[in-house]
Amino acid sequence: MYVVTASTTNRSGTVWWGWGAPDAHTPLAEDIRSLLEAAFAVARQDTPPVGLDELHLPASSLSVEASEALAGVVGPAWVRVDAGSRVRRCRGRSTADLLRLRAGDALDAPDAVVLPAGHDEVLAVLRVCARLRLAVVPFGGGTSVVGGLAPARGGFAGVVALDLARLDRLTAVDAESQVVTCEPGLRGPALEAALAAHGFTLGHRPQSWEYASVGGFAATRSSGQASAGYGRFDSLVVGLRIATPAGTWELGRAPASAAGPDLRQLALGSEGAFGVITQLRLRVRPLPAATHYEGWRLAGFAAGTAALRELAQRDLLPTVARLSDETETAAGLAGGGIGADAGGCRLIAGYEGEADWVAARQAAVAEVLGAAGGVPLGAEAGTQWVRGRFHGPYLRDALLDAGMFAETLETAGFWSALPGLYTRVRDTLVAALTAEQAAGQTVRQAAGPPAGATAGPAGEAAAGPAGAGAGEAAAGGAPGLVMCHVSHVYPTGASLYFTVVCPGRDDPVARWRRVKAAASRAIVETGGTITHHHAVGVDHQPWLTAEIGDLGVAVLRAVKHTLDPDGILNPGVLVPRAT
Amino acid sequence: MYVVTASTTNRSGTVWWGWGAPDAHTPLAEDIRSLLEAAFAVARQDTPPVGLDELHLPASSLSVEASEALAGVVGPAWVRVDAGSRVRRCRGRSTADLLRLRAGDALDAPDAVVLPAGHDEVLAVLRVCARLRLAVVPFGGGTSVVGGLAPARGGFAGVVALDLARLDRLTAVDAESQVVTCEPGLRGPALEAALAAHGFTLGHRPQSWEYASVGGFAATRSSGQASAGYGRFDSLVVGLRIATPAGTWELGRAPASAAGPDLRQLALGSEGAFGVITQLRLRVRPLPAATHYEGWRLAGFAAGTAALRELAQRDLLPTVARLSDETETAAGLAGGGIGADAGGCRLIAGYEGEADWVAARQAAVAEVLGAAGGVPLGAEAGTQWVRGRFHGPYLRDALLDAGMFAETLETAGFWSALPGLYTRVRDTLVAALTAEQAAGQTVRQAAGPPAGATAGPAGEAAAGPAGAGAGEAAAGGAPGLVMCHVSHVYPTGASLYFTVVCPGRDDPVARWRRVKAAASRAIVETGGTITHHHAVGVDHQPWLTAEIGDLGVAVLRAVKHTLDPDGILNPGVLVPRAT
Repeated sequence: MYVVTASTTNRSGTVWWGWGAPDAHTPLAEDIRSLLEAAFAVARQDTPPVGLDELHLPASSLSVEASEALAGVVGPAWVRVDAGSRVRRCRGRSTADLLRLRAGDALDAPDAVVLPAGHDEVLAVLRVCARLRLAVVPFGGGTSVVGGLAPARGGFAGVVALDLARLDRLTAVDAESQVVTCEPGLRGPALEAALAAHGFTLGHRPQSWEYASVGGFAATRSSGQASAGYGRFDSLVVGLRIATPAGTWELGRAPASAAGPDLRQLALGSEGAFGVITQLRLRVRPLPAATHYEGWRLAGFAAGTAALRELAQRDLLPTVARLSDETETAAGLAGGGIGADAGGCRLIAGYEGEADWVAARQAAVAEVLGAAGGVPLGAEAGTQWVRGRFHGPYLRDALLDAGMFAETLETAGFWSALPGLYTRVRDTLVAALTAEQAAGQTVRQAAGPPAGATAGPAGEAAAGPAGAGAGEAAAGGAPGLVMCHVSHVYPTGASLYFTVVCPGRDDPVARWRRVKAAASRAIVETGGTITHHHAVGVDHQPWLTAEIGDLGVAVLRAVKHTLDPDGILNPGVLVPRAT
Repeated sequence: MYVVTASTTNRSGTVWWGWGAPDAHTPLAEDIRSLLEAAFAVARQDTPPVGLDELHLPASSLSVEASEALAGVVGPAWVRVDAGSRVRRCRGRSTADLLRLRAGDALDAPDAVVLPAGHDEVLAVLRVCARLRLAVVPFGGGTSVVGGLAPARGGFAGVVALDLARLDRLTAVDAESQVVTCEPGLRGPALEAALAAHGFTLGHRPQSWEYASVGGFAATRSSGQASAGYGRFDSLVVGLRIATPAGTWELGRAPASAAGPDLRQLALGSEGAFGVITQLRLRVRPLPAATHYEGWRLAGFAAGTAALRELAQRDLLPTVARLSDETETAAGLAGGGIGADAGGCRLIAGYEGEADWVAARQAAVAEVLGAAGGVPLGAEAGTQWVRGRFHGPYLRDALLDAGMFAETLETAGFWSALPGLYTRVRDTLVAALTAEQAAGQTVRQAAGPPAGATAGPAGEAAAGPAGAGAGEAAAGGAPGLVMCHVSHVYPTGASLYFTVVCPGRDDPVARWRRVKAAASRAIVETGGTITHHHAVGVDHQPWLTAEIGDLGVAVLRAVKHTLDPDGILNPGVLVPRAT
């Protein structure tokens, strides 16, 4: 049903400096590139990655003793210290991760990649690593965008990437309960293919779906593009088996229980810091008999979010519901061509299920959207979005090749807080980009920005925050493009997903760190969560205490100490190390 | 919309030996009483509770220092050591709890009842109790049926019941987000009345609704009779504030988050062992515009559960869906009169929501139930169930007065495990009751059991397990009535709720302990959860390790130690004490 554009076996089939398979990459379209260069008033600049031979990759610190002990568990063929294996497990896939790699910095590469064949081997690897003081990074799809694969090395003899690619089986299908048992190394497409053979679907399709693993979905509390219909990943997990340094932990005997706290919810979102998920039991659904996607134009973001709120609170949501703001719509990243919507905000609605349900729900949604002033754009707009739904990371690679910077961040809040959260984060991003622009004019040339591709929402550009505070620097071009969409909707609130595109300039990693910090502060101060579905990793850790309190951090530390007494699992990821 | 039969202020308006207000009690109907006596072949025996003056209530151990320190926090009027206050917070409302009280045993009564006015006073009370080594029982509605209010006293200077009745306000209504903020001491009816003034409902109505508190709903992962439509209580909680001995803990900034494990799920189900919930933020819904309840007759329990499974998996569930097995239907406890259904299984379906939705869902459900051979019994059968929905605990009091014993237990499992779970638990209960009957013939008289009120499902009585293994004893009458219903349905499985009615005989508490242990073992061995919505307390603790593993218990201990380092909160409840 969906186009899979790349191999699904594991990251060894992908480019080491970016996303996906080599043949899936195309350069940035010339019209888009020219438009961005003019908007940002920057000269053309090609910025390809360095060659593999130019990489700064430290020698592996894995001792002979460790190598032999690990090989004794998994077999010599499954302990890898070659450059290709190590570089491909170096960090995750945030833009900062990629920029470092593209510049030749593989300093965070693991010393070895170990590929166990099953649960017992994972347990044994953990014992070896605890004994020899090796840090362990559980590695699924390697698609973290929050530093979830870059542990602190201090105090360890080395870092081992525990790649779960060989745990890739669908092991049981309970068709009556609509519950399947599978292993964590399965990537999205492989899992769906295996389920389809039994007439089922998980329906979980985040943008990283082609490469992300089912274990990673669990470890990061992933949320798919169809969360409105199929639910967040955590809501699909009925059971888990976890290999921890303290032993095996199995959870989940029933659809629901009152036998104390729901401890499955401690494993979900544990980001490899508490244990290695080696088995999952998941709720699945029958493959949808009917599928329909369509586009709508709403007059503005406020009208669109109000309509989504009504749909959610009246239990009338489509399977997929995503609303782009004016800027994202105008930029053509909402599922249509540039300016295709003649202004306003693009909303994509998708319906998957029994034929009767699809027809009835489509009609109910049309009534609500029509009453909200929405204009139907037909099925082609929806199909267009479906075709491009996994395209974002490839586009980012093309932008990075062309001297541009692109990154995303996301949050969620209750409906009453959402307008303030949206405005504050957007304005903060624009202001921070403007400040960066003012501080780094060297790589820009003077040119007027074209209409319709500025930092503020369309129609607000002239008086909007893009111009505010930029002074002389802003006159040289827009500081960046700040776009937003709502893609996960609940009765009580929604997510906000921001995409930033701006000139790469010098030292883009440090620049983004400052911009992201300003946005994160805005999120925390406006009452949003620091992450709706990207997880904590290392990047969001400075904001975690504001979210869960000192007691929350103390609880995470206590749980980690119980399950991982030597602290070998992803040290410094998720759980702040005691100071 | 619902008949509230008792005061809702706090348990001080209730009878000390049973359920609800004194004027809400009526004796067991003569026809039912005669039928049961004949079925069980027992002589008439009135077993009223002892008088309040006959109670064994130990003198309060509260020291003058403690009394003054507590009074210094909450004021002298809110520290109570009188017999009435203490007896009314003695244990919960399991049948064993009531039988002990009715026999005059108030040995577990707290030494004092303290009623704080707000969060800061709760924190201060906890500090006093930690300093003076007093165990603290957070007390909401006092309706625990699993020993959740009977902590271990060993090592403590005394036990304080921390009654949250004064924290009874609805403090904020966010109509846009459909999120309200309230305090934990609100009972079900008071909360609904406060919400109704704003046009909202929580929709959470467990059988204990008249007296249970909203804090208790959270602390025990309660599930309401309308869970199919409104969701389990845990799914309605978006935020919590908890007073712990280690300080204040606030959780929940957004409808959903990936900021690590969902720590709210540690507080939910924590049964007062981690902290005192002092504020909740809850998802509410608009008051339903339309309401319709109806009855159906299904040919058997298997056909009925299959139909419920189809409804759940096709997302077509009514708001209330409960199916009684043949015995419960025949006994008239399924919402109809005795034998009113002419055999088969009674199913109650309730619909609450927008008028269009009620009509459409009712039609969709009728199609599924009709195809499953269901026969509609009309609205009166549904209305009858609504009228009696909170009646169970009053009926139990009447049974206890009449020399009978009545108690419930519950579990849940995946659909594929449900038939085995049902049969095994039912047969185990019948066999255990038969063994108890054989061991205690002294209070029985010889008489033949009438048809239709035996231990097995109707139609199986002759060859069923009731007769098996009972030998000579069984000839004297049925050993008991074992009934079951499904009341909480999920796409992946369902709950099973068993009700046992049998002769009281001598030492019924010890007898039930043996019967319950056999049933609990059957649940664990057949893969069910030890409790779907009654919680762990003290009673289910022997089975907790089987459910969450040694590591699960270790995690609970670590979390408790972090939040309650002196272990003063509900010692021995939920978290097994280290041996």
